[in-house]
Amino acid sequence: MLGSTHGTLTTDFRARVVACGEQPAPGAVHGRAAGEGDRDVSGRPLYRDVPDLDRFFRPESVAVVGASDAEGRPNTGITRRLIDWAERVGARIHPVHPTRTTVFGLPCVASVADLPEQVDLAVLLVGDPLPVVEELAEAKVKFAVAFASGFAETGERGAAAQERLAAAVKRSGLRLLGPNTNLNAFERFRDDLDGPAIALITQSGHQGRPVFTMQELGVRLSHWAPTGNEADLETADFISYFAEQPEVGAIACYVEGLKDGRAFLLAADRAARAGVPVVAVKVGRTETGARMAASHTGKLTGADDVVDAAMRQYGVIRVDGLDQLQDTAALLARARKPRAEGVVVYSISGGTGAHFSDLASAAGLPMPTLSPAKQAELHEWIPPYLDVANPVDNGGHPVGDWRGRKIIDAILADPSVGVLICPITGPFPPMSDKLAQDLVDAAEQTDKLVCVVWGSPLGTESAYRETLLGSDRVATFRTFANCIGAVRAYLSHHRFTTGYRSPFDEAPRVPSPSFRKAQALMRPGQQLSEHAAKQLLRAYGIRVPREQLVTSAAAAVRAAGLVGYPVVMKASGARLAHKSELGLVKVGLTSASQIRDAYRELTDIARYEDIDLDGVLVCQMVERGVEMVVGVTHDALFGPTVTVGLGGVLVEVLGDSAVRVPPFGEEQARDMLGELRGRALLDGVRGGPPLDVDALVEVVLRVQRMALELGDEIAELDINPLVVLPRGQGAVALDALAVCR
Amino acid sequence: MLGSTHGTLTTDFRARVVACGEQPAPGAVHGRAAGEGDRDVSGRPLYRDVPDLDRFFRPESVAVVGASDAEGRPNTGITRRLIDWAERVGARIHPVHPTRTTVFGLPCVASVADLPEQVDLAVLLVGDPLPVVEELAEAKVKFAVAFASGFAETGERGAAAQERLAAAVKRSGLRLLGPNTNLNAFERFRDDLDGPAIALITQSGHQGRPVFTMQELGVRLSHWAPTGNEADLETADFISYFAEQPEVGAIACYVEGLKDGRAFLLAADRAARAGVPVVAVKVGRTETGARMAASHTGKLTGADDVVDAAMRQYGVIRVDGLDQLQDTAALLARARKPRAEGVVVYSISGGTGAHFSDLASAAGLPMPTLSPAKQAELHEWIPPYLDVANPVDNGGHPVGDWRGRKIIDAILADPSVGVLICPITGPFPPMSDKLAQDLVDAAEQTDKLVCVVWGSPLGTESAYRETLLGSDRVATFRTFANCIGAVRAYLSHHRFTTGYRSPFDEAPRVPSPSFRKAQALMRPGQQLSEHAAKQLLRAYGIRVPREQLVTSAAAAVRAAGLVGYPVVMKASGARLAHKSELGLVKVGLTSASQIRDAYRELTDIARYEDIDLDGVLVCQMVERGVEMVVGVTHDALFGPTVTVGLGGVLVEVLGDSAVRVPPFGEEQARDMLGELRGRALLDGVRGGPPLDVDALVEVVLRVQRMALELGDEIAELDINPLVVLPRGQGAVALDALAVCR
Repeated sequence: MLGSTHGTLTTDFRARVVACGEQPAPGAVHGRAAGEGDRDVSGRPLYRDVPDLDRFFRPESVAVVGASDAEGRPNTGITRRLIDWAERVGARIHPVHPTRTTVFGLPCVASVADLPEQVDLAVLLVGDPLPVVEELAEAKVKFAVAFASGFAETGERGAAAQERLAAAVKRSGLRLLGPNTNLNAFERFRDDLDGPAIALITQSGHQGRPVFTMQELGVRLSHWAPTGNEADLETADFISYFAEQPEVGAIACYVEGLKDGRAFLLAADRAARAGVPVVAVKVGRTETGARMAASHTGKLTGADDVVDAAMRQYGVIRVDGLDQLQDTAALLARARKPRAEGVVVYSISGGTGAHFSDLASAAGLPMPTLSPAKQAELHEWIPPYLDVANPVDNGGHPVGDWRGRKIIDAILADPSVGVLICPITGPFPPMSDKLAQDLVDAAEQTDKLVCVVWGSPLGTESAYRETLLGSDRVATFRTFANCIGAVRAYLSHHRFTTGYRSPFDEAPRVPSPSFRKAQALMRPGQQLSEHAAKQLLRAYGIRVPREQLVTSAAAAVRAAGLVGYPVVMKASGARLAHKSELGLVKVGLTSASQIRDAYRELTDIARYEDIDLDGVLVCQMVERGVEMVVGVTHDALFGPTVTVGLGGVLVEVLGDSAVRVPPFGEEQARDMLGELRGRALLDGVRGGPPLDVDALVEVVLRVQRMALELGDEIAELDINPLVVLPRGQGAVALDALAVCR
Repeated sequence: MLGSTHGTLTTDFRARVVACGEQPAPGAVHGRAAGEGDRDVSGRPLYRDVPDLDRFFRPESVAVVGASDAEGRPNTGITRRLIDWAERVGARIHPVHPTRTTVFGLPCVASVADLPEQVDLAVLLVGDPLPVVEELAEAKVKFAVAFASGFAETGERGAAAQERLAAAVKRSGLRLLGPNTNLNAFERFRDDLDGPAIALITQSGHQGRPVFTMQELGVRLSHWAPTGNEADLETADFISYFAEQPEVGAIACYVEGLKDGRAFLLAADRAARAGVPVVAVKVGRTETGARMAASHTGKLTGADDVVDAAMRQYGVIRVDGLDQLQDTAALLARARKPRAEGVVVYSISGGTGAHFSDLASAAGLPMPTLSPAKQAELHEWIPPYLDVANPVDNGGHPVGDWRGRKIIDAILADPSVGVLICPITGPFPPMSDKLAQDLVDAAEQTDKLVCVVWGSPLGTESAYRETLLGSDRVATFRTFANCIGAVRAYLSHHRFTTGYRSPFDEAPRVPSPSFRKAQALMRPGQQLSEHAAKQLLRAYGIRVPREQLVTSAAAAVRAAGLVGYPVVMKASGARLAHKSELGLVKVGLTSASQIRDAYRELTDIARYEDIDLDGVLVCQMVERGVEMVVGVTHDALFGPTVTVGLGGVLVEVLGDSAVRVPPFGEEQARDMLGELRGRALLDGVRGGPPLDVDALVEVVLRVQRMALELGDEIAELDINPLVVLPRGQGAVALDALAVCR
């Protein structure tokens, strides 16, 4: 289990909401009325304002604080670029400098207070932006960008300076981008491109460049938010803002760390509700990466499996490489909703079709076999000995004449087909040029997705650069892998958003009746005894064996009579773990004399080992089933999380478990089980009966309720083992560990 | 277990060797004398001739059978291309056609018999090459290429035609490429490129095009063998030939299926001995891909996990995409042997360094932390607040001046560094152009590997196209993933070949003394009783529990006295499986009366279930350890293989096992254990003692011996469970299943 900094985070959540509360309140959120005060039972917000960033991205007037035209100064170049940019977008620009009267011929004022108008945006080219913040607030400037570095990315002193800056910004009502950011938001965007655009959010300018450059391949980019250290405005703010902009087809993010886990989830939820895909590179697969990312912008990377799960819960598509970010975001921004799920591979070479299909099916793309009628139709133009079931191999020649287009149209007309992929592994102009043109023409006349992989390492060919990239209806890739990954993301995004129900709509806001019972059992700072931990579970409706806590051999015998033979006896105490290893568990006791012997032995061992007991548990024996583990773990970024895994020594070694961040619904609980490598165990083993998966799911959801209601009071909770019995017979928590904060 | 076609394959192996025997015999092979007759104890060859293909790739004279210059005929275009090619390489060309006197102005003869000279190569542009084969043999033509399709790729009839063609070729002494191939071997290769080259082997022309096109990025290509259906010359022939050509730096293969598993392994072994890397795409990750590949060239794809293991055994680098094939082959062809294993990432952005390092360490690249002294040196040029431990983040500015080159040289001078990788995620000319030039200049003066990732999706920038691609000392990639994959392959290739010992040198050639004992136990067509199967194991020195087979209760009691209490009793019979489920196993028997009861009960159950027993086994109880499974499985392509896995019900579900193709040495047996996800179990669980891994390895090697000696007589062999005891205490086969052919 991770050490927890949850207390700090809660404070942080509250502080964040205060800051958000100072923004203009929006209207009703999709499907429900919610507002800033809306919180789930854990006290975490269920709602977060979307900052109005229109004037940030399209300011009418801009102040450049620290403007310069002196030769050789870095600020001079930046000032020059800002003036050019302002001219291009029609913004008024006002240099600010204490000693200059003009900068690049523009009148320059000495301080922010002297600005001739209320500006939308101030670009701060000063080493320490802190003193300027108050001036800006007084001048009612809406937004500022702070370039200065030397904050959280440099260590503790920098982090303290950043906190002071953040606090000043919060007081001021100003919204600030940075510090440690750059001019990326004010780059020269191509304005001649149509259709849905990518909006880009990066925590590093250099890392955003490849997506930005996609404009040169004809992919429209609408915004670029280089968030830097996120002292104020953070990735989540931009995601939720972009999700509401009509021109945005997809949001591409390069994320090193998250400032606030809940804020990110609320933003991702907003994008999911709006059906806007979010594609993200998130650094932190390894310790090395996490450490480096932290040192780069001073943010938490979070436990990677939790980040991964959290992203999946809200449909965020995580990719590893910037090339995948480019290709996936471009496809998702531009492709229409799929008409069908089926993917057909069409190629001029049997080898290419076999190879692509092999990788595509390994990646899980649905590749239906075309109907006999459709195959017969394709064989009108394709020689009979070639396979056209899917992949469709045309053998090359039909591409060269009128048949080429017929084949493509016939495939696209099939109702099972939503996506046609044509891998062209090498340019062979007599065929590939005609093929590319046919694909572009066909794509213009269908609302289905047409993808091409252009395999040449050069990419200078006109069939690629003019024909394919010239079309915004054909999605063109350079590698099989990126095409397959993007199409998979495309299909799963639409599957996800079609059925999306926000877990925040269904999150509990008030404590359950269980909560009061549970509170009476809590012992702050202590580990509960097994008996007390089980009472906690029982309070939440989780089944535990019949059991009694006794303090004499005679009482043990009486208890066995009530519990029912055979029984298990276990030593019980507040700080007792690894009972089996210590010999403090006796199973299969069938008589009063065995019980008396066991009582004596258990108490002897405890005395010998110097263990304080609060008694001995006499428990019902439970039939055999599959042992699972269900628990609550604290994540530094997201707070209490729920895990489920296979129990037993083998899986201790294999680490086969799944995690989710609350709140989540039943479907996610079922998906968790689906992620387990050993999930087949739940279907029954060696002809055994299938197990009670419904009961297991119910336990996971009840543990989630505990995580939500008690998460801040419980340091650790583990049911190990939870025995899942055959279908209809439930699941029983045989042992539990609970540590209070 | 796979159904086995091993009998057929053995025939095929023998047939192949006869064919090879007709080739000129080479001299001694590296380090040992071996020849065509050399076989391991299984009868499989330990040696395979390398065909001399010099005159195939560089013929002095070529006949074009079916040449044409008639407008509109496909053969006309091919003839034209062959004439151009011959002119370029200085070969004499002779058209052959029954009715023409000239073709494109060249004198044309009516038949092969009329050729004016003995030609090296005949290109067959005829629909049915079979009748031509004998003519070619009579004219002492060395090589032929058959273009015709319609053979094994079209189904059974085609396969039969192909077999006839293969047989005719074998008789003739001619070596044939194809059928179902093309002109790729006679493309226009760039002859202005220096340094080590890629040699390319593909089973599909279109799929080879991307590697061929690498020449336009400055990567030299020396040969292209489009093997088609491989009726005669196969992938293995070209691998072994290329491995001996001095200009070849790496062999790139696109493989759909293998004609002969052993031939492939012998060729890969030859490449490994020569230190020439083989990089391969092998289709068949999924059933779909395997089926498609089979239908494309009519070859076996083999069980994918076995193919994968076989490739790893011989250091063949398997990749999934053609882009990976390009990038990995190009790097391995051109990079010198690493001076050290350490990889340092150097970037102009902390984000880029963090991101790249995250992916690189996730992929297992060794990334040493630079020494404090080296870090201090780097901080002479890099601001102190930037991290230079590895990754080295220069913050951007030092790149622009004299410091840029200093930093690169200082990193390369570090003795722990073998590879410097500089990811440039987007072109930013003021920095990236200078950086690219510095990297190229530095690379010229070091024998260490310098890699650059040029992240622009365009690739039209001069820094990329001229500066980086213009250097054959810098390895340039377009994506992080391909760079990381190629560098990993580069390091592991050199690690592999440095310590390479050919398993064929150490393969047993004569049966062990165990073999004779084992043979006496075989019962063709039958499943052996547990007792007999264990005797088989014992014959090979694998420990089994002390046990006696008895046929009366009294004998059982006597046997228990000899075996030692407590004992296990099991029903024993020839066709008995799932004994535990049937209640035919009794454990923990501690007295004569328990034994008598157990005997009665076991024989009663057998009678009731109508099971023939040959008696009851009275076995020693073995202490607890970790249960493993070791067995022999038949692979359609490679014959008997050895598998090892974790035992028990959980791993039945998880399928955690590793496989190897014999012959293999102890190191591979240890690597098998390393591949198990649950390998930590062998280190001891919950504070338990580490287990006897040496004994487990020994069992795996003894089972391999059985596979080699009995592989063709045993249909199935499974030790389940093999209990591995604590270190020093060995491993015991508790149960075994053996089915004779």
